[in-house]
Amino acid sequence: MSANETVDRWLRELDAALAARDAAAAVALFHEDCYWRDLVSFTWNHKTLEGRTAIADMLKSTLGDVQPSHWKRDGEATVDGDLTEAWVTFETKVARGRGRVRLKNGKAWILLTTMVELKGHEEKNGPRRIKGAVHGVHKHRETWLEGREREERELGTKTQPYCLIIGGGQGGIILGARLRKLGVPTIIIEQNKRPGDSWRKRYKSLCLHDPVWYDHLPYMPFPQDWPIFSPKDKIADWLEMYTKVMELNYWGSTTCQSAKYDAKKQEWVVKVERAGKAITLKPKQLVLATGLSGFANVPKYKGEATFKGDIHHSSKHPGPDAYKGKKAVIIGSNNSAHDIAAALWENGCDVTMVQRTSTMIARSDTLMELEAGPLFSEEAVARGIDVHTADLLYAANPYKEQAKGLIPVTDAIRARDADFYKRLEKAGFMLDFGDDGSGLHVKYIRRGSGYYIDVGASELIADGKIKLKTKVSIAEIKAKSVMFTDGSEVKADLIVYATGYGNMNNWAAKLISQDVADKVGKIWGIGSNTTKDPGPWEGEPRNMWKPTQQEALWFHGGNLHQSRHMSQFLSLQLKARMEGIATPVYGLQEVHHRA
Amino acid sequence: MSANETVDRWLRELDAALAARDAAAAVALFHEDCYWRDLVSFTWNHKTLEGRTAIADMLKSTLGDVQPSHWKRDGEATVDGDLTEAWVTFETKVARGRGRVRLKNGKAWILLTTMVELKGHEEKNGPRRIKGAVHGVHKHRETWLEGREREERELGTKTQPYCLIIGGGQGGIILGARLRKLGVPTIIIEQNKRPGDSWRKRYKSLCLHDPVWYDHLPYMPFPQDWPIFSPKDKIADWLEMYTKVMELNYWGSTTCQSAKYDAKKQEWVVKVERAGKAITLKPKQLVLATGLSGFANVPKYKGEATFKGDIHHSSKHPGPDAYKGKKAVIIGSNNSAHDIAAALWENGCDVTMVQRTSTMIARSDTLMELEAGPLFSEEAVARGIDVHTADLLYAANPYKEQAKGLIPVTDAIRARDADFYKRLEKAGFMLDFGDDGSGLHVKYIRRGSGYYIDVGASELIADGKIKLKTKVSIAEIKAKSVMFTDGSEVKADLIVYATGYGNMNNWAAKLISQDVADKVGKIWGIGSNTTKDPGPWEGEPRNMWKPTQQEALWFHGGNLHQSRHMSQFLSLQLKARMEGIATPVYGLQEVHHRA
Repeated sequence: MSANETVDRWLRELDAALAARDAAAAVALFHEDCYWRDLVSFTWNHKTLEGRTAIADMLKSTLGDVQPSHWKRDGEATVDGDLTEAWVTFETKVARGRGRVRLKNGKAWILLTTMVELKGHEEKNGPRRIKGAVHGVHKHRETWLEGREREERELGTKTQPYCLIIGGGQGGIILGARLRKLGVPTIIIEQNKRPGDSWRKRYKSLCLHDPVWYDHLPYMPFPQDWPIFSPKDKIADWLEMYTKVMELNYWGSTTCQSAKYDAKKQEWVVKVERAGKAITLKPKQLVLATGLSGFANVPKYKGEATFKGDIHHSSKHPGPDAYKGKKAVIIGSNNSAHDIAAALWENGCDVTMVQRTSTMIARSDTLMELEAGPLFSEEAVARGIDVHTADLLYAANPYKEQAKGLIPVTDAIRARDADFYKRLEKAGFMLDFGDDGSGLHVKYIRRGSGYYIDVGASELIADGKIKLKTKVSIAEIKAKSVMFTDGSEVKADLIVYATGYGNMNNWAAKLISQDVADKVGKIWGIGSNTTKDPGPWEGEPRNMWKPTQQEALWFHGGNLHQSRHMSQFLSLQLKARMEGIATPVYGLQEVHHRA
Repeated sequence: MSANETVDRWLRELDAALAARDAAAAVALFHEDCYWRDLVSFTWNHKTLEGRTAIADMLKSTLGDVQPSHWKRDGEATVDGDLTEAWVTFETKVARGRGRVRLKNGKAWILLTTMVELKGHEEKNGPRRIKGAVHGVHKHRETWLEGREREERELGTKTQPYCLIIGGGQGGIILGARLRKLGVPTIIIEQNKRPGDSWRKRYKSLCLHDPVWYDHLPYMPFPQDWPIFSPKDKIADWLEMYTKVMELNYWGSTTCQSAKYDAKKQEWVVKVERAGKAITLKPKQLVLATGLSGFANVPKYKGEATFKGDIHHSSKHPGPDAYKGKKAVIIGSNNSAHDIAAALWENGCDVTMVQRTSTMIARSDTLMELEAGPLFSEEAVARGIDVHTADLLYAANPYKEQAKGLIPVTDAIRARDADFYKRLEKAGFMLDFGDDGSGLHVKYIRRGSGYYIDVGASELIADGKIKLKTKVSIAEIKAKSVMFTDGSEVKADLIVYATGYGNMNNWAAKLISQDVADKVGKIWGIGSNTTKDPGPWEGEPRNMWKPTQQEALWFHGGNLHQSRHMSQFLSLQLKARMEGIATPVYGLQEVHHRA
């Protein structure tokens, strides 16, 4: 039987089982060891169901509402060893979906199902695009500009947005663009003046650590000559232009004072201050896309108040220009710590890095080739893997399998750069490769910290040009120095706390209430029961892009890849609610951790 | 023999003849009735060579320098009736090229050759893209932002641009983007403050008359949901964003006072005023991308000074808002006249249109389907014709054949909308379909005027809602009316001269000198010896995008399609000169008309 026939037969059998609402027959098409990952299309949730029992339970709960049908292979099936894979399309009662099936010996190992569009509420792309000019004769017509200006004037005062996004960084902007395309009236509020300012205000040497193929925004890919690692200000300008072109209702210089859910009216009462003026908004849905900054982790050390030099968190670090010839102590050893340390050293500053815990280091070139390359690279593009295909291929790999699959990749990284790692260790640097050796990306997924993608600073450390303090703690800060627990002292004109950020849950506590924050619980982490990601196993990032224990409250964000792909599903969830389409949530997550 | 084999054999024979520098053998591969259209790759010019003699002459003059080689079919050849067609790639000594061959019974009817890129000076796209972040350790590195700011500060003061583009509308911006990608230091000066202002200042109801598939800018296509007919302010915002993202050195609020070529130093001395400050620029190359406005055709009528109402050229018309309940006389019957008249009527104004000469009218829907559709439409995209493919297919059709081919299309348009035309004629409207019945687009190519793409106004005329005066001239303007030569009088609070624009040659006269303007001669027109396009036959638009009789002076512009595609060839001509690559121009055009 050809690969296509294998897939086609499996889809026919799945179609028949689901049409008969026969969960047992459906799961019989899966191996014992199997996954069904669903993004919104069956569960109105993000769910990775593991094993036949979990899948059967999901199907029993959802089939009556979902009414799946029209399962079809899309394109040619491919064979790789004992795996036969294909793209599939399907429909539900209310939506069209796309997925990927991975069969082993004719039975499913992994099935991914994702929602693409709601029937009757499709984006107006390509053949559906609007005419723009309104031909014919129309008394007192409103031009596009007049309409836009009226909308800007009235939305938030005369009319209320259906959705309010707090935070106008990349996450808020991308989600805003998706919602705009779906016709969901939305306001984005942002404390900075202009879109992109959250990038502009970071330390000046910052470039994206992820490559361009990973970073595309939806609808408008970067031009063909966009740099692989974009400088921060170039990304900032792009975000500003994108916001304008996408016609987003973006309120800069606006802060949220408080938000309270009126369960009876089913709407939020959100007090904001826009350029000094108090405004109350009443959206039906509230999205926190606040990112992490604002809740800097700042350690408290004895004597800090007596320090005579500059002391700030990495999020406030201006760059090296003022510190030529000075002495700096950087506390922390992740991306920001390394970038800031290197830029200071390059500018003639004497730098000491204080490493408190071990760090995963990966050389950028190696990481790009071995870890990101298969999906996000020029070679992948040449193989026909455009950004949306890459996103779906990524999504088709459940987090549990991802970690397993990245252990040999991480081993290969360690082997290739063995000499590099040896030199770093010789300099005293504490290395790790994740609790289970699954490497950098999995560390990002589990805890969002604990790594540096090396673009040069590690050589400075290996060479001793950036000095290192490890295996000691800071005992005290003095007027012009830092004292360590081993009795050593390092002179300092500048102390940078590159000590990371608190949980996004803090934002819920600050803007809404501690009660709501506690009800919602910890954001991010997948329950891997590894360092900084406590169990039990969740299988999907906690509270992100999906319903939470607080009605009408959503969390959005992540890196550009996550913001791009996951905003698709969040925007569909919001649109469905606006249109009054039933959205029965399967398996709303229990809360196991507060923050 | 298969289509592929037919093409392959022809290419082998061409390759052999050209390699042997044997022009006679090469032209023996063409029919008697044949064309070779070359855009820059053989001629460093735009040339449509008609017939074997012309082709042989070109080859004899150019082969020694061009050294063409590596002729290859690109993709599958296709057959349509007795035509066999294929894309071809080739190389010259200094460049890579792309073309299209159309064979009849094994011999060439049409060959298109175009230059794609200069060897060693390729755009940094895809696999060639820059890294962006500079990895490693570099003392005192300059960030991207610092570099951009330095460039903006220094270019035009401390350093000189290689190229100066006068006019920052769509044409100047697009060419600027091409030059940026090629690393040609360029300044664009524009009298308006912001990119896009030349659109923003037009009458408020204006939407593009060309559809989105025709309008893409290079490098950054419009998003998938861009309206078919973009409102002017939306295009304006796009241009502003594009200018920023493409990192163009765009000097708004800047006017050119004078320009003079120093033949000895081979550079221009250009005096500009930037936001009130006088600056002298010394570029090696000067491009006039001034468009047409600024040289409005304004007729002089007796008594105009006594008129008590508003009187202005269409380029200054603000839109209808101030004219509700008033009486307007619009002089002219092309696109602007119709758009302005309709918007005034919609806003409750009493409108009379004065038609002086016959006009080609085509209903937008009909025109899009029958004339533009084959290359520029959603259906074309679905057939795999992306914008660059469409541009090349368009270019592969010499202007003489284009006019012939569009006669039956225009006949079909007349047939489909026969009733519509009948009603217009019944209302007294003077119609034409081009001197030879080749329709609207050919009229645009030949004279850039004489037509209206109907989006509604024609119905108002047919219905008598917009009143019409034809077959009479204006005798005199009085304080509150217009008197006609037949003795009739029309009351007026507003007179709009929708009377078109003068030749771009006027700009050369104004900015440089009348001598240079006369030396260069008329811009635009292809010498078709039809109304407003005097002969002799040129076969390519006069003076556009190619060398002129004035060294280092260039003209750029046209609609978005022309600006997009032709800027490719102009940017390569400029880049080659900057790099000192020999650019022997074949067949520099003689001047037959001053303006």
